[in-house]
Amino acid sequence: MPEYRRDLLTGRMVIVAEERATRPYQFDIERNDSHGNEQTPRSTCPFCPGNESQTPNEIAAFRPNGSEWTVRVVPNKYPAVVHDATTPWSDLSFHGNGPLSESMNGVGQHEVIVDTPRHILSIAEMTEHEVEVMFQMYCARLHALRAEERYATVMIFKNVGAAAGASLPHSHSQLVAMPFVPESLRFELERALDYRSKKMSPVEIDAPFPCVWCDMLAAELSDGRRIVEETKNFVAFCPYVSRFPAEVAVFPKGHQPFFEDLQHGLCSEVAHLVRRTVRRLEKATPWMKNMFSYNIVLGSGPFRYEKPFVYHAHLSILPSLSRAAGFEWGTGLHINPISPETAAAKLRNTEP
Amino acid sequence: MPEYRRDLLTGRMVIVAEERATRPYQFDIERNDSHGNEQTPRSTCPFCPGNESQTPNEIAAFRPNGSEWTVRVVPNKYPAVVHDATTPWSDLSFHGNGPLSESMNGVGQHEVIVDTPRHILSIAEMTEHEVEVMFQMYCARLHALRAEERYATVMIFKNVGAAAGASLPHSHSQLVAMPFVPESLRFELERALDYRSKKMSPVEIDAPFPCVWCDMLAAELSDGRRIVEETKNFVAFCPYVSRFPAEVAVFPKGHQPFFEDLQHGLCSEVAHLVRRTVRRLEKATPWMKNMFSYNIVLGSGPFRYEKPFVYHAHLSILPSLSRAAGFEWGTGLHINPISPETAAAKLRNTEP
Repeated sequence: MPEYRRDLLTGRMVIVAEERATRPYQFDIERNDSHGNEQTPRSTCPFCPGNESQTPNEIAAFRPNGSEWTVRVVPNKYPAVVHDATTPWSDLSFHGNGPLSESMNGVGQHEVIVDTPRHILSIAEMTEHEVEVMFQMYCARLHALRAEERYATVMIFKNVGAAAGASLPHSHSQLVAMPFVPESLRFELERALDYRSKKMSPVEIDAPFPCVWCDMLAAELSDGRRIVEETKNFVAFCPYVSRFPAEVAVFPKGHQPFFEDLQHGLCSEVAHLVRRTVRRLEKATPWMKNMFSYNIVLGSGPFRYEKPFVYHAHLSILPSLSRAAGFEWGTGLHINPISPETAAAKLRNTEP
Repeated sequence: MPEYRRDLLTGRMVIVAEERATRPYQFDIERNDSHGNEQTPRSTCPFCPGNESQTPNEIAAFRPNGSEWTVRVVPNKYPAVVHDATTPWSDLSFHGNGPLSESMNGVGQHEVIVDTPRHILSIAEMTEHEVEVMFQMYCARLHALRAEERYATVMIFKNVGAAAGASLPHSHSQLVAMPFVPESLRFELERALDYRSKKMSPVEIDAPFPCVWCDMLAAELSDGRRIVEETKNFVAFCPYVSRFPAEVAVFPKGHQPFFEDLQHGLCSEVAHLVRRTVRRLEKATPWMKNMFSYNIVLGSGPFRYEKPFVYHAHLSILPSLSRAAGFEWGTGLHINPISPETAAAKLRNTEP
């Protein structure tokens, strides 16, 4: 059974999940193939069509008009957290482990979303339609887990390429559902509430506005230096405090706490914008070893939080162009050798 | 000029340092040599004897009895922060950049400590004497910078191997001095003060005890499951909340806020213990590509803090056996596939 552990002194939290140590690693580090050579199904790839029996029982899939699946969701075979019916729900809280640390059973849900039947690596190689379908599945899973009323937070993310921490090359996303709101998200929500309370009278306190993220987007759009691309309803920009070179944030312009509540048309719009942004990044940045590696992290409002309407959904694209090292782990500060202003100018001038 | 930037919403802080983007990279990723082939001086290595002119002016060095240098300190040629006499000291504070973020000139000092004249990669290959000398230089630099009364925090760290973020193979350490106390360190100090205030009467509030770290060490020693090695004055153990597989913390058993105040004999004792621990890690863990990569981070009390005696100096050895990916960046939680209990048992049973 995995375990959540929290250090009360540093605020650090980990999931100890020894099951994950045995997962297979299918990146050939020395690989010199171009992406094109990776696009045929592989008998050893558990995510390719024909190999469905290599994954645990399917959780969800889209099969338009009864055809083959276009996107498929399965439990992670090497989960960080587990769906455990034997842990009573009432028992899901941290228990002291000495005066300095706490632990809790590693209850949760860890899913893999196979983005496409094609054995390709990156969103950059997906068609517009494939990326749309992938985002529709993100929304479908978020809706389904929200309806279950079991978890507080669902984190959807992608690791693309070995340098971004992926262990399998076939394009996939992951979902981790947890019974609590992580400290970093809680911190942001509290700051956002502070911001509102300073700007409004007490009677308005349950309204979603003013929203700190809405105000930040307005400032970024008016400044312009960090904007990568603006569409009708979304904006992609390099955040003023970017931890990584060429980090890009994508926000809906309108206030929307939950990613899964984006209307169908908006879901397609953001999917296309993310695809274009990854293509810009792949062309504009000095990636190495024939693979542009990156993480995508979806920020969506937690299901169980006193004032969920406060959050403003967004996503972050984090290129693996530098890595956290001693200084970052020791201080929490990140050294970023490319300013977001330089990165945004380069990306704006790169055809997607 | 580099710039510190702080995001008030997330608490994130970065150093934007475009000067660093141009630094050379001397790891041959495909290298299949054994370590032994790396031990002769290289004409292209700026840290090898004979190539001293490739580095900026020497800051410090040990030349016992007028012989060649055994350890040497130079300014980092591609600094994250800079010693800038034109920024008035009184101006060294964060200035608002809109309602959500702040910035400040990237003032500080970034040094490289060339650990040994030999072109070797790791502490594991250094002699006991070489490691002692390296730690003595750490203490000498901490003392010198503390005497200057210019900086609030000095962070000493090592990145060993490409997977740990090193750009040059020749064994070296780095030092970054900053005019403020990073948020994560301030958080720890505040928790440590809370711990004391709950355990003592108000009249004792300026005493260093009880120390949360002293109590934690006593609990670890009594439990025993996470201990790697105990010497007369130090203990090496895998922390209960380890972010990384086989992470090891090394603490002096006696309360000591400042690393540089360790007596000469203790400095040798910790140097030997760190060397033995790295040798254990290198033998016991499944490192790849002919190089065991790791970070070492020194935690020493900040020079400018209201109650500096509260801190308990220590260091962390962080093997690069997993890497932070989408989940970690999105949630702040780390997934660790090897429990500290498993790691400590393995390391205890490995000859150093």
